[in-house]
Amino acid sequence: MSTTITTAGWNHTEIEISHSVLQKAYQRETETLMAQVRSQINNMTDMQQLWQVHDLLSAKRYDLDGKYDNREPMLVFTFAQLLKEGWISLEELNGLDSAKLAKISSLSKM
Amino acid sequence: MSTTITTAGWNHTEIEISHSVLQKAYQRETETLMAQVRSQINNMTDMQQLWQVHDLLSAKRYDLDGKYDNREPMLVFTFAQLLKEGWISLEELNGLDSAKLAKISSLSKM
Repeated sequence: MSTTITTAGWNHTEIEISHSVLQKAYQRETETLMAQVRSQINNMTDMQQLWQVHDLLSAKRYDLDGKYDNREPMLVFTFAQLLKEGWISLEELNGLDSAKLAKISSLSKM
Repeated sequence: MSTTITTAGWNHTEIEISHSVLQKAYQRETETLMAQVRSQINNMTDMQQLWQVHDLLSAKRYDLDGKYDNREPMLVFTFAQLLKEGWISLEELNGLDSAKLAKISSLSKM
């Protein structure tokens, strides 16, 4: 098997790690969003601020809908994005093979 | 002048009453919305509930955008809608001529 094929496949352990990390990242990101909305709503004094919350929710809903793509061919990109945005650390992905980790790490810096 | 033409025109006093009533109705409706969102946000426990708030805000923003139409030919319809939804009372429109009041009242029951 060539290196390319090895990097592309995800074994059972890697899939388990991926699901667990995705779940944790989603929880962190959504809890942060809920806290942010709670704070904005409790400090709002006018409708302009309520529409700002609406704009934030529209953007985040769209963002979250696309970002947590757990299809195998997309996982490297999903993790790179989450790493870039600070929702996960590279250490949490320990257990993935080193070629995947290197790819995720370098994509996250783009 | 025919009754139709009389009903269609809005004199200075009627315009002043209209603007004042529209402003009050808008304030009531938006304060109610802000209170409702505050309550939902402070009671939410999961993301599903946050997206429900987003859906509510999307619907209300669209609704409010169209509803407070203060162009003269639309005022009768605007007031009928606000009356129907309970944001104003017919008494608050005292000072408009009786033909307009009758029209608003009957449209509000449709």
